[in-house]
Amino acid sequence: MHPILTACDGGLVIRWPDGISGTFPHLWLRDTDPAGFHPTTGERAFDLTGVPLEIAPSDIAIDGDALVLRWPDSDAPSHFDLHWLKANRPGQRRPDAAAVDRIAWRGDLRADNGTVGPPRRAADAIAEQDGALADWLAVTKQYGLSIVHGLPNDAGAGIALARRIGHLRETNFGRTFDVVSKADPNNLAYTADALPLHTDLTNQELPPGFQFLHCIANAAAGGGSIFCDGLAVAADLAAADPDAFEILCSVSVPFRFHDTDTDIRARKTVLTRDAEGAVTEICFNAHIADILDLPSEAMPGFYRAYRLFMTMTRDPAYRIALRLAPGEMVVFDNRRVLHGREAFDPATGLRHLRGAYVDRGDWDSRLRVLRRAAG
Amino acid sequence: MHPILTACDGGLVIRWPDGISGTFPHLWLRDTDPAGFHPTTGERAFDLTGVPLEIAPSDIAIDGDALVLRWPDSDAPSHFDLHWLKANRPGQRRPDAAAVDRIAWRGDLRADNGTVGPPRRAADAIAEQDGALADWLAVTKQYGLSIVHGLPNDAGAGIALARRIGHLRETNFGRTFDVVSKADPNNLAYTADALPLHTDLTNQELPPGFQFLHCIANAAAGGGSIFCDGLAVAADLAAADPDAFEILCSVSVPFRFHDTDTDIRARKTVLTRDAEGAVTEICFNAHIADILDLPSEAMPGFYRAYRLFMTMTRDPAYRIALRLAPGEMVVFDNRRVLHGREAFDPATGLRHLRGAYVDRGDWDSRLRVLRRAAG
Repeated sequence: MHPILTACDGGLVIRWPDGISGTFPHLWLRDTDPAGFHPTTGERAFDLTGVPLEIAPSDIAIDGDALVLRWPDSDAPSHFDLHWLKANRPGQRRPDAAAVDRIAWRGDLRADNGTVGPPRRAADAIAEQDGALADWLAVTKQYGLSIVHGLPNDAGAGIALARRIGHLRETNFGRTFDVVSKADPNNLAYTADALPLHTDLTNQELPPGFQFLHCIANAAAGGGSIFCDGLAVAADLAAADPDAFEILCSVSVPFRFHDTDTDIRARKTVLTRDAEGAVTEICFNAHIADILDLPSEAMPGFYRAYRLFMTMTRDPAYRIALRLAPGEMVVFDNRRVLHGREAFDPATGLRHLRGAYVDRGDWDSRLRVLRRAAG
Repeated sequence: MHPILTACDGGLVIRWPDGISGTFPHLWLRDTDPAGFHPTTGERAFDLTGVPLEIAPSDIAIDGDALVLRWPDSDAPSHFDLHWLKANRPGQRRPDAAAVDRIAWRGDLRADNGTVGPPRRAADAIAEQDGALADWLAVTKQYGLSIVHGLPNDAGAGIALARRIGHLRETNFGRTFDVVSKADPNNLAYTADALPLHTDLTNQELPPGFQFLHCIANAAAGGGSIFCDGLAVAADLAAADPDAFEILCSVSVPFRFHDTDTDIRARKTVLTRDAEGAVTEICFNAHIADILDLPSEAMPGFYRAYRLFMTMTRDPAYRIALRLAPGEMVVFDNRRVLHGREAFDPATGLRHLRGAYVDRGDWDSRLRVLRRAAG
């Protein structure tokens, strides 16, 4: 059974036998003609300024599985696959193999196999099998956090896994960084101090996406790692105190990191929502929050909301603690999951994490390509 | 003459002899105490959850140029420099040495010295003198476009200048890229086709900031470079057709680049405004605009606005054309200034540009640090 075509103002309505229908403006059909894309690069070659806004086909026909349109300005008819038109009808978001339902977690986090703590995956499988790589990418995006275990005894092994995904996001701290206690630190991370829960580099226009921390040595007393899912805190705050939630979504505040070589600044809201209202990003870093510059009348409301969010991140109900062992790597979405650490005593032994970032766009790209290859 | 202190609800009003006054919430004063920042890293060490929202000083005094506050929870009084308090009073944006007034330009662009075309600067001065580097950064940000001339006969010379600013922004095309006609292109840039005006990599969550195109060879017939200031087009569109302008500021559309190794997607509005309503970003790239997925009823309005913007970019009133010579480099804000080229004939000679990007955040950081050093 063929779909049924009817005309509407400026377009074409297609009704499929299963009841689904789509409204296709004539100009969209002209702009989307498969022949209007470059044969090698796949990029759009069709020039929209070459046709009037009111363009309409001079002939419309169905030929097997194809919709065939003739145009007054062109000798070449447009051929559309009707199944493709149905899947790509206006108002439908295109299917995305990188779309993953996120699971918000709290202090009682259990992994996908039911064990206590974050999902764990084996380094050798990720390194060698594309299927294991895709599974790891998906589960890490789902929980915002995973642990890779069994890394070889090689300081570059964690970074090599990150490079399986995409290029490393370079920052003013380099393409990779070593979290150790340093003599002349330009950042709290490079001290032995406790680090309350935060997200990294909120002073950047685009804070880095996924963070990798490969544990090379962890012999010092103290220095446990703590994590908290900002999505869970944001969801509970929205339910408990909608005013505070709204302030954190709408009031932007300044962040700044500066040392002898840099002075990098950005304004951010603590929470960011997408067009559908889902929280997509948490920017929370009290260390590099710059001097608050809001009008004084806006400050009590902001401080109340901000301090409430901060207090929730300190609540054991939201946090998990773990002690990384050499050969383990923790991987987390830095724009979702807050991280921190307990103070440690550098006199008692070496604590050395090697870190890097891969941005969300490259993460999703790799997942799409792997799933494309898997069919 | 001292400033006058008066109490207000939850804070302190300071009135300086010149008539300027500021309202300083008590909690802001506690949070901003200079002693609450790490002595080496400059990061905030003070923990907001350690004091109640209603904290108030137990004693307030002026001592010379300092405001001295004692707190009920601490033995250490806070010392504020009164000049610093005046400059950083709530509601004041902090001074920013990277702030530059942007000059929107059209087809009759004249450089800062009055000559026809973009500002031009000498490569050797930028390479050797920090003052010349700061001047180049400022003028390029002001116009969104400049030409560097007199680069040494070395294919790495342009990139070396870019690295004077900060690290190169890596993308799926690498840290640097060579714009030449290729046999099996994955991008229209790597063909000999004409490239209508566009901004690069609108399919990235953060499209790259400043772009560098160093001309190494330009012996082919054709291949002239064209530029258009998106700020000027946006300003004129806002005046001529506010509805179209509003649609381009508010309706986000999908962009996508995909080849054998990548599939990178982002949704963007064509125009982005800041909180004050100033246009801060243009995302315009018809080649990698993905299949339009808006509801069909939103399409006529979007197509009308988008096609109008596109038509304006083709208007000679907005565009400048130039032919790069070997040893010249064009530098432009890829999120503001659209670029394109005429078709060329690769059989007539080599055309080779070497490109790279440095993001806006790093650009501004370098400008701040250079101006800090210059006093």
